[in-house]
Amino acid sequence: MILTGKNYIAGSLSSNGRTTFKGINPSDATELETTFYEATIDETNEAALKAHEAFAIYRKKSGEEKALFLDAIADEILNLGDELITYCSAESGLPIGRITGERGRTMGQLKLFATVLREGSWVDARIDPALPDRQPLPRADIRYMQKPLGAVGVFGASNFPLAFSVAGGDTASALASGCPVVVKGHPSHPGTCEMIAMAINKAAEKTGMPKGVFSMVHGSIEVGMAIVNHPHIKAIGFTGSTKGGIAIFQAANNRDEPIPVYSEMGSTNPVFILPEALKARSEEIAKGLTNSVTLGTGQFCTNPGLVFLNNDENLQNFQKLTAKHFEEAEAGVMLNKGIKSAFDNGIESLASNKLDVKLVAKGKFSSEGFKGSAHLFETTAKSFISKDYFEEENFGPSTISVVADSKEELLTSAKKMKGHLTATLFGTENDLNNYTDLIDVLEQKVGRLIINDFPTGVEVCHAMVHGGPFPATTNSRSTSVGTAAIHRFTRPVCYQNFPENLLPDELKTDNPLGIMRLFNGDYKR
Amino acid sequence: MILTGKNYIAGSLSSNGRTTFKGINPSDATELETTFYEATIDETNEAALKAHEAFAIYRKKSGEEKALFLDAIADEILNLGDELITYCSAESGLPIGRITGERGRTMGQLKLFATVLREGSWVDARIDPALPDRQPLPRADIRYMQKPLGAVGVFGASNFPLAFSVAGGDTASALASGCPVVVKGHPSHPGTCEMIAMAINKAAEKTGMPKGVFSMVHGSIEVGMAIVNHPHIKAIGFTGSTKGGIAIFQAANNRDEPIPVYSEMGSTNPVFILPEALKARSEEIAKGLTNSVTLGTGQFCTNPGLVFLNNDENLQNFQKLTAKHFEEAEAGVMLNKGIKSAFDNGIESLASNKLDVKLVAKGKFSSEGFKGSAHLFETTAKSFISKDYFEEENFGPSTISVVADSKEELLTSAKKMKGHLTATLFGTENDLNNYTDLIDVLEQKVGRLIINDFPTGVEVCHAMVHGGPFPATTNSRSTSVGTAAIHRFTRPVCYQNFPENLLPDELKTDNPLGIMRLFNGDYKR
Repeated sequence: MILTGKNYIAGSLSSNGRTTFKGINPSDATELETTFYEATIDETNEAALKAHEAFAIYRKKSGEEKALFLDAIADEILNLGDELITYCSAESGLPIGRITGERGRTMGQLKLFATVLREGSWVDARIDPALPDRQPLPRADIRYMQKPLGAVGVFGASNFPLAFSVAGGDTASALASGCPVVVKGHPSHPGTCEMIAMAINKAAEKTGMPKGVFSMVHGSIEVGMAIVNHPHIKAIGFTGSTKGGIAIFQAANNRDEPIPVYSEMGSTNPVFILPEALKARSEEIAKGLTNSVTLGTGQFCTNPGLVFLNNDENLQNFQKLTAKHFEEAEAGVMLNKGIKSAFDNGIESLASNKLDVKLVAKGKFSSEGFKGSAHLFETTAKSFISKDYFEEENFGPSTISVVADSKEELLTSAKKMKGHLTATLFGTENDLNNYTDLIDVLEQKVGRLIINDFPTGVEVCHAMVHGGPFPATTNSRSTSVGTAAIHRFTRPVCYQNFPENLLPDELKTDNPLGIMRLFNGDYKR
Repeated sequence: MILTGKNYIAGSLSSNGRTTFKGINPSDATELETTFYEATIDETNEAALKAHEAFAIYRKKSGEEKALFLDAIADEILNLGDELITYCSAESGLPIGRITGERGRTMGQLKLFATVLREGSWVDARIDPALPDRQPLPRADIRYMQKPLGAVGVFGASNFPLAFSVAGGDTASALASGCPVVVKGHPSHPGTCEMIAMAINKAAEKTGMPKGVFSMVHGSIEVGMAIVNHPHIKAIGFTGSTKGGIAIFQAANNRDEPIPVYSEMGSTNPVFILPEALKARSEEIAKGLTNSVTLGTGQFCTNPGLVFLNNDENLQNFQKLTAKHFEEAEAGVMLNKGIKSAFDNGIESLASNKLDVKLVAKGKFSSEGFKGSAHLFETTAKSFISKDYFEEENFGPSTISVVADSKEELLTSAKKMKGHLTATLFGTENDLNNYTDLIDVLEQKVGRLIINDFPTGVEVCHAMVHGGPFPATTNSRSTSVGTAAIHRFTRPVCYQNFPENLLPDELKTDNPLGIMRLFNGDYKR
């Protein structure tokens, strides 16, 4: 397949801008061939306008029609064949096996949203029928359902070039809700972005969707902010850095019409290893922890960056085992030069902090491409409690063991924490029953609590929460992974005293879609 | 009952401040007796801190326990007896009958939330059981439910001194969700605020709730902003002016930890009277419209402030009928001096706008207290389309007829609109089928669409949406009336691989609460 390097604007290729760039293979730091054109502000505005125009049509598509579209996107992604896999691997430095798995996940989440649309109950339909004889006043017929917000801007992540990029979770959930999407392509994998844009365009054509239902523009901050500030854009999905996520959030709040921003900005995902588990399962946990920290060269939003341990007789052995695994870890390719240098700076800053931090172990080193080495640091809960920087994410394969002298210190550490995506506890039944107060505190700090399992690996399902209190995200009331993500892009609309023929199918009295509804307060199909 | 004029902070009376004020009877502009103490910043912070401390306990109360608390609040409000009714009427200028009805509504919404808590399914429980044999990777057991956010700050409205003030919809839904509440009392009805605070305190004591679960502080902007900016406050419910609502929204977004703000700021609630209905039901609609505009001296968030009409042969007759009703309308007491003078300024500004606006009719005048007179203005759709100020709410008994020369002008007017709480259409079956495109546009602009009924009168039920796109509210994805309001104060939390005994009852495998849950994608009890 020949990459054009152009922007995909409502089904048409466009390259009016003069700023160009090329993809970089992070494995060997070489430039890839295709030249990509950053979108101009005019092109970006055109994408937003076309999305708005498409919304008038797309918002009225049935669940089945949208499901066919999402299924078709999944099929067209598969139709891109091995070329997608090899190109995406070249751009991201992520191995072929990982990219193949991620393609499956990307297709899987599109198809999962299709099943949600076909089932149909996600719209939270509610019917309170008229009570004409009620005293002192009659009640009108009142019905309610979720409706899409309008065109959505999506900013994909570098670390999941398929599952959280152009056709990733944000796009899938926005399209499922009935919102057209304008994606800002990620400059770390522009060719992958183009291939996926091509697939979405084909799927839109095949299933008769309005052209503006999808656009993808390449570009940097200016292009991104043009999307955020466009009056026709009604919500933003973002996965990436804290700085970027907050800048978008603030810009969106300062618009004439503020819009919701779902920035998922990562976290340090504290892990607590409780005393009996530390004693009984040292090697298993040490190995698992190392794998979790180094998975994907540590470039996971749910990477465990803080590991809390009690300072007891089993601590040294556990640290020795973990250090050994870290030392054996191969250096891994990082996604791009910026991420690699930010990681090195983070490591350098921790390593030079002799007052609070000890470097326990270092993984293998490689000067090839943008490779990063695993690092294991240690600090004390006292330092954690008195300093703020330990909660800052250092994106890459490093973690900090935080050693507590008492249960009280663990609780104080947890209470001090800001919001994170996840918190994890390893413990025996006894441990867990002895630490319910800690679980209680952690429940108030995160979107997902995990027991005896590692936080990396975010299941796409109905019950997943990939979110959490600020600064993990800008909206703790949402998830960016799993089917509940669809609710980010809808709002409730109420229909009072409507004749049957003007009601949406979801709210017609005889329930033609057979969906679950709240009828007079009772759940009924 | 003796009013103390003090602040209610976590069950204790407090009056450390030096700034005092008195209530005013708007019917005759006389001062009422009690002296009220504005809270100091320290007192306000104390309320927030105590709310946070109470959250640790209150968040774990069962649905039944919280339901008993809400029921007890309703009972204690009734126990305040006629004294509440007469005092509230004196402070607000609202008639005894209206206040009696509003007390019923206030108790009704507390009791409705109690039934929602007892039923229990509102937590949106989801269970995706483990799939240990799945290939290539097993799935962990993953469960999900809504959990309360933390302490909530509530700013009541002047126009519903019971139903949208201290124990109003925001407080009821926040307490139902599991969040303690700090209310800033409204200076227009401080005695009512104190009586209701007393009732809530008694209910909290009787049902064994932690003291900090409720506080009420008197004060002005500084006190309000101290609530908004307190790090232990995790969400805000506000009903009031656009200026106030936006100021709170911006402050909350600029906190170190931004928090959600649900500001309901009112709207002009466009009404469209379609041609056949205008012809067939002129008198009925003219009379109903006048009643809706003058109800509660026009001081309803859903007051119809814009009435769109086609310039056809029935227009003049309809305007004549409406004018007659407006001229017969008695002057009504307005809630306070500020509202009265803002209304007079709005009227003056419209009346002096000879270029675009014609004064069609004026209701009866009274110089007594803060009384306002009904006003009916007329403009053209051309003016509406080219000028921005017609959408600005003029809080009080006035409305503007907007005369369109074509259906196209109606559509353009609707497309130009910002967000409103409601939009209403009067039409015959034919009319409505001829104007589905207009309905489509309006659906994108409001929270509630009404056919052949007036927007005033907001039913408290499961299917109500009292909300809408900005600037009607700062969060179109919510409602402040009806049971769905509870979701404003919760966020999803996910439990991965949890042992049964540590799961919340809502998520235990055998479903001890018998609630509706999404089990592997299927709805099940």
